[in-house]
Amino acid sequence: MINGPNLNLLAERQPEIYGSLSLGEIEQRLRTQASARGYALEFHQSNHEGEIVEWLQRYRRDVAGIIINPAAYSHTSGAILDALLTVTVPVVEVHLSNIYRREEFRRQSLTARACVGLISGLGPAGYDLALTYLIDSFRG
Amino acid sequence: MINGPNLNLLAERQPEIYGSLSLGEIEQRLRTQASARGYALEFHQSNHEGEIVEWLQRYRRDVAGIIINPAAYSHTSGAILDALLTVTVPVVEVHLSNIYRREEFRRQSLTARACVGLISGLGPAGYDLALTYLIDSFRG
Amino acid sequence: MINGPNLNLLAERQPEIYGSLSLGEIEQRLRTQASARGYALEFHQSNHEGEIVEWLQRYRRDVAGIIINPAAYSHTSGAILDALLTVTVPVVEVHLSNIYRREEFRRQSLTARACVGLISGLGPAGYDLALTYLIDSFRG
Amino acid sequence: MINGPNLNLLAERQPEIYGSLSLGEIEQRLRTQASARGYALEFHQSNHEGEIVEWLQRYRRDVAGIIINPAAYSHTSGAILDALLTVTVPVVEVHLSNIYRREEFRRQSLTARACVGLISGLGPAGYDLALTYLIDSFRG
Amino acid sequence: MINGPNLNLLAERQPEIYGSLSLGEIEQRLRTQASARGYALEFHQSNHEGEIVEWLQRYRRDVAGIIINPAAYSHTSGAILDALLTVTVPVVEVHLSNIYRREEFRRQSLTARACVGLISGLGPAGYDLALTYLIDSFRG
Amino acid sequence: MINGPNLNLLAERQPEIYGSLSLGEIEQRLRTQASARGYALEFHQSNHEGEIVEWLQRYRRDVAGIIINPAAYSHTSGAILDALLTVTVPVVEVHLSNIYRREEFRRQSLTARACVGLISGLGPAGYDLALTYLIDSFRG
Amino acid sequence: MINGPNLNLLAERQPEIYGSLSLGEIEQRLRTQASARGYALEFHQSNHEGEIVEWLQRYRRDVAGIIINPAAYSHTSGAILDALLTVTVPVVEVHLSNIYRREEFRRQSLTARACVGLISGLGPAGYDLALTYLIDSFRG
Amino acid sequence: MINGPNLNLLAERQPEIYGSLSLGEIEQRLRTQASARGYALEFHQSNHEGEIVEWLQRYRRDVAGIIINPAAYSHTSGAILDALLTVTVPVVEVHLSNIYRREEFRRQSLTARACVGLISGLGPAGYDLALTYLIDSFRG
Amino acid sequence: MINGPNLNLLAERQPEIYGSLSLGEIEQRLRTQASARGYALEFHQSNHEGEIVEWLQRYRRDVAGIIINPAAYSHTSGAILDALLTVTVPVVEVHLSNIYRREEFRRQSLTARACVGLISGLGPAGYDLALTYLIDSFRG
Amino acid sequence: MINGPNLNLLAERQPEIYGSLSLGEIEQRLRTQASARGYALEFHQSNHEGEIVEWLQRYRRDVAGIIINPAAYSHTSGAILDALLTVTVPVVEVHLSNIYRREEFRRQSLTARACVGLISGLGPAGYDLALTYLIDSFRG
Amino acid sequence: MINGPNLNLLAERQPEIYGSLSLGEIEQRLRTQASARGYALEFHQSNHEGEIVEWLQRYRRDVAGIIINPAAYSHTSGAILDALLTVTVPVVEVHLSNIYRREEFRRQSLTARACVGLISGLGPAGYDLALTYLIDSFRG
Amino acid sequence: MINGPNLNLLAERQPEIYGSLSLGEIEQRLRTQASARGYALEFHQSNHEGEIVEWLQRYRRDVAGIIINPAAYSHTSGAILDALLTVTVPVVEVHLSNIYRREEFRRQSLTARACVGLISGLGPAGYDLALTYLIDSFRG
Repeated sequence: MINGPNLNLLAERQPEIYGSLSLGEIEQRLRTQASARGYALEFHQSNHEGEIVEWLQRYRRDVAGIIINPAAYSHTSGAILDALLTVTVPVVEVHLSNIYRREEFRRQSLTARACVGLISGLGPAGYDLALTYLIDSFRG
Repeated sequence: MINGPNLNLLAERQPEIYGSLSLGEIEQRLRTQASARGYALEFHQSNHEGEIVEWLQRYRRDVAGIIINPAAYSHTSGAILDALLTVTVPVVEVHLSNIYRREEFRRQSLTARACVGLISGLGPAGYDLALTYLIDSFRG
Repeated sequence: MINGPNLNLLAERQPEIYGSLSLGEIEQRLRTQASARGYALEFHQSNHEGEIVEWLQRYRRDVAGIIINPAAYSHTSGAILDALLTVTVPVVEVHLSNIYRREEFRRQSLTARACVGLISGLGPAGYDLALTYLIDSFRG
Repeated sequence: MINGPNLNLLAERQPEIYGSLSLGEIEQRLRTQASARGYALEFHQSNHEGEIVEWLQRYRRDVAGIIINPAAYSHTSGAILDALLTVTVPVVEVHLSNIYRREEFRRQSLTARACVGLISGLGPAGYDLALTYLIDSFRG
Repeated sequence: MINGPNLNLLAERQPEIYGSLSLGEIEQRLRTQASARGYALEFHQSNHEGEIVEWLQRYRRDVAGIIINPAAYSHTSGAILDALLTVTVPVVEVHLSNIYRREEFRRQSLTARACVGLISGLGPAGYDLALTYLIDSFRG
Repeated sequence: MINGPNLNLLAERQPEIYGSLSLGEIEQRLRTQASARGYALEFHQSNHEGEIVEWLQRYRRDVAGIIINPAAYSHTSGAILDALLTVTVPVVEVHLSNIYRREEFRRQSLTARACVGLISGLGPAGYDLALTYLIDSFRG
Repeated sequence: MINGPNLNLLAERQPEIYGSLSLGEIEQRLRTQASARGYALEFHQSNHEGEIVEWLQRYRRDVAGIIINPAAYSHTSGAILDALLTVTVPVVEVHLSNIYRREEFRRQSLTARACVGLISGLGPAGYDLALTYLIDSFRG
Repeated sequence: MINGPNLNLLAERQPEIYGSLSLGEIEQRLRTQASARGYALEFHQSNHEGEIVEWLQRYRRDVAGIIINPAAYSHTSGAILDALLTVTVPVVEVHLSNIYRREEFRRQSLTARACVGLISGLGPAGYDLALTYLIDSFRG
Repeated sequence: MINGPNLNLLAERQPEIYGSLSLGEIEQRLRTQASARGYALEFHQSNHEGEIVEWLQRYRRDVAGIIINPAAYSHTSGAILDALLTVTVPVVEVHLSNIYRREEFRRQSLTARACVGLISGLGPAGYDLALTYLIDSFRG
Repeated sequence: MINGPNLNLLAERQPEIYGSLSLGEIEQRLRTQASARGYALEFHQSNHEGEIVEWLQRYRRDVAGIIINPAAYSHTSGAILDALLTVTVPVVEVHLSNIYRREEFRRQSLTARACVGLISGLGPAGYDLALTYLIDSFRG
Repeated sequence: MINGPNLNLLAERQPEIYGSLSLGEIEQRLRTQASARGYALEFHQSNHEGEIVEWLQRYRRDVAGIIINPAAYSHTSGAILDALLTVTVPVVEVHLSNIYRREEFRRQSLTARACVGLISGLGPAGYDLALTYLIDSFRG
Repeated sequence: MINGPNLNLLAERQPEIYGSLSLGEIEQRLRTQASARGYALEFHQSNHEGEIVEWLQRYRRDVAGIIINPAAYSHTSGAILDALLTVTVPVVEVHLSNIYRREEFRRQSLTARACVGLISGLGPAGYDLALTYLIDSFRG
């Protein structure tokens, strides 16, 4: 699981948009959920576009699946898009807020073009659903 | 649950994009899942923009939540958007395909502006996840 | 008089934008006003683009004039525009809200191109004024 | 009542678009109508954007309501828009011609964003209707 | 053969653009022509986008070919486009008027993207030619 | 009949788009068809925009009708458009491929604005149909 | 002859673009030239859009012809365009600089739509030529 | 110092955006500040585009520097831009509100292209800073 | 003097736009006018973009000046623009019709960017004026 | 105080645009000025978008105010915009050059939407003014 | 090797952009270089779009590879693009100047879509490199 | 030589687009080629926009020339563009794939505006050619 810029401030940042759960609490909940179904979870957050590129490169075929929330980089980052295009495992993009209710520039996602799909606006539950989706799909 | 135009042909229509499950099978699966958690499911499909408007009007405060896949109407229908704006229960928009991988005109969703959020590209599982999300949120 | 999608919910729907009068109350008021001046009023509402087309076709030369509020269909419906182009009696377009204060896509009206003129933002009084205009113009 | 550029030429200028009534005749008719209902009417016309700004400033809270036809300034004048934003009484914008039937640049109204609503395409009758609307609304 | 909105008014509607033949006369002529070559013709007209979607679904593999004139829906209807994408027999789009000589929004056809080709501007003869094309192509 | 750039390579060039008939074979077929109905056919192909302009000038009132396939020049040539505007006999534009299925810049036709209509996507049969249309229209 | 904003500074303002002749010298030269051919010349300059509107109104049918250089107002002024539309004598628009060599916003002229034609880039000689054109055309 | 349209209403107009200081109070404060550093201040406000052009022409080389707040004219006035291009002393543009937080059409400044720089969003303090800047730069 | 495509048809082609003088008559008139002032005139017309390029190359420094009417090529021809950029003598662009009154694509001139200026809408007199301008400028 | 990419090269980089003061000299001057008024100054420069995000996060409520020059990142960085949205102290954006005089893509500032205001084009003095503004505003 | 319009003037035309080598000198240098590696070079230049189309058709499978500099035609010529699409040998596009440093319309290349790649801005050396690339690639 | 994001994955990433040579192999080949001509090669790859900025700063006048492949950063990075503008030695931009054959957003290069030129689509050979070009140009 890879989180983009400013997600480390979750719970502190515009809680009316992003919810009141901290990233640490989300991580804890997802780890529990993953291990209950027999999977381990790697969890990263970075504010650096280049670092997100590098995590995608590192995990691109050595994990079962990837959940990514590229945050503001979704809308413009060709570099993350290119990294996603090298990934051979399924990737689900998650946005905490509903990007169609935000400013114009947030309504398109360049990175989602290289993902299986995206979940947007369901808050932290979006991560849970993405995890459920991936594990279910691994099991056929 | 409200399905838009051409979804009655699911399984027959471009299965490489929309998957091989028929709408009847999806309905069956969702009913089972809903009743297991104590909820009943109304299930509709229409190819008529006006009919979708009317279902939204009928259910807009008498159900616990709505899952909608407006299909092609998502991208242009101000009438469905206006109907959604009168709905007082949570609505989740679902698209079977990843709209960011499709033609330009499918990349924006007008109707999603009046929904809690959307799930796109996860196939029929998107409906399951939306249902899970709604029932979980009813229970706090 | 022909009303477009979601106008049947008037009074219940976003009253801060559309006012607190129901469509039934508006109809009553207009009937009274029309008959006081010696005219009968046909009154329709539909959420179906095709039905609005058909009413326009039916009345297109057998009434003295038409008041239309195509609601969300104003902004995109070529079919209603084409139906209006076949109408040989004067048509006035009415919008309850001021379309220049709404979202971008509501600021243009395709259908108004085939009307005598439009009244926008004056609430239910817009219908009264349109009726006054038409009856006055019939009488020269 | 405030009229914008070239309206002093009414009746002489493109009568097929703007009608055959002169501005003086319109003024006369409106004065009669206003006084019949107990109101006095101030009537101005100017070809100067700045003068229109100044009338709006002068009357912005000392009259019961304003009818404005900014003519060509509607489409581009941020200065008149800003003046309208300082006005605390209701303002109705009137256009003699139907702006949706004119050239592209005339189809948007910047100034209408700061008005209650607008009436377009109903010729001089548009002023009567705006006056009726305002007086009715003063009386509740 | 499927005809879109307002085509039922043919001969009455803007004859300088659409010609003086009624839809009934066109139907008669095409039936004669088809049966002369050993084919039967189903003939429909609807003002409802959803109904056109449903006819396309019904006939999508049970006829030899389809001629469609989606009229105003050509330019915006993703729903008809999606229905056409499920059709497995050849479809020819016909427009009575030359869409490149009309207003800007009529110059693109969304639905034509899912047809074999289109004939535009040749009036009712366009239907004859489309029929000839289809029957010739069936026979190799 | 006037053919634009690269049509001399027909059958050799992208046969999956343009078909396997050579321009010579098409010419032969059309000559036969025309003479069967009592008409002679002039047949030209040029890769030069200016030459196409000149043929249009030469034939602009001395023939019964013109079939033109301006190929790539359709989308940008004001010079051919201007030449077509001087032509006083009916002109039909033909495209072998369906221009709405091609790249963005091929979806508009500047030259079609000065033609009676166009046939697009029906392959070499498009020429036959255009010829049929013209001869039928000469005969009323 | 009507000159727009900043032309009173001619010779002092960006002489590399606008030349070294003052407006007074240009006026002198034109008066001489006009009277040599039997015409009198009214000469105005204003920095006020409204004043230009008013001169156009005043002279709109009482002179033989008008030369106008609306300067920066050419590119945006609907008010001057509307005033020009009321003018019944021929008007020629003159620009000292070549507007196609200037910034993007100077490359279109709204006001030229209501003139017979325009002369741009020929410096003060442009006025002479416009005068010659008008006087020649008066004389047939 | 030159102030554009509606700035005479400062303190009364949308104080949440423009602050609660009147233009008179600002003028007073700036005069004090200027004279403390040995400079005299000319202070003007106009709602007329043409008048602003004329002040710029009058002062364009006879003062040490100019502070201008063209308000709504910033975004569209080529005439003020042209006047600024004739000014040979440094000019600083000031906006009370942050133009990047306002509506789309306020986010560009045409007039700023001919200024040394601009200060936006710092309220009346913006004038103080502009004055400080200019006086500091005069003194090297 | 260089004339672009379709100008050889002058007098025959849309005389309401282009006037009733033939190109031969214009040539004759210009020759007379030129020789009266001591200059000889080369006169060319071509429908070929490449040929116009070549005439510009041939004459680019061996004549005193060039008058060009690139007709439809003005709006799109980078090749003629590039040729004009190699020309070292003054060039004046002439359009018979007023390009600001024509369709959208005719309102910009790419080629005029490399000319001294342009004259548009004054009919054949535009050539006379261009010739006068050039000869006057040669003589200082 | 936070400086964006390439500002470490100040004085060496395009001095005609950015001035001849090095970033170290600017820092020195600002420290002096701040301490004279009783404030300490943190001073950072980074070429990394992610690092700027992190400094904003670190200081977002533990300092009295922030001066930021995001340089090229101003125009595109949603990540810095999001970080600024979490900052609870006043932020002033500074650009050394006048962004309205630069290339098109530099004329908008995404990051300024989350700042109090911006100062652009006043060179290093812009920093001094921003500091003065902030300290003045702290003191009321 | 095929050269587009105005390249015959190389060395004379804007040498600060295109360099001081004539096309003859470039041809000589390339012939030497080609024959040193065992290849013969055909060398053409034309100002005619149609002629370039025809050379591409002639050589499209009978040479080992093609170097093309379509000059101004690169940006708009669908005809050359179509001709390139029929070519079955590798083609390299060369531009002497860096098209990203030129005017907006020169920044896209339509023709490059049908080439292996392009070299832009390296002057005549671009041809040498293209030749090296092609010969190297023939040899594996 | 500086390589941008994801180029470290070369040979593994979409080999049908980027070729089968690894970046290590390319480096080896270029070192050999450089040393054969008497030059040493620095070779860097980074996924971080900021790091690329810093390498450009470090080498900007201490090397003979720079080859850069900014990959996805080419299309959007103002920061790298600004760094390139500080470089005083020649820079050649290389893209392995032909950017005109890729998605719309890859067809423009912001960074190329500050380079001598670019080579695109020739695969790893593009680096060789850029090296050849630079060394040749050093030697005159």
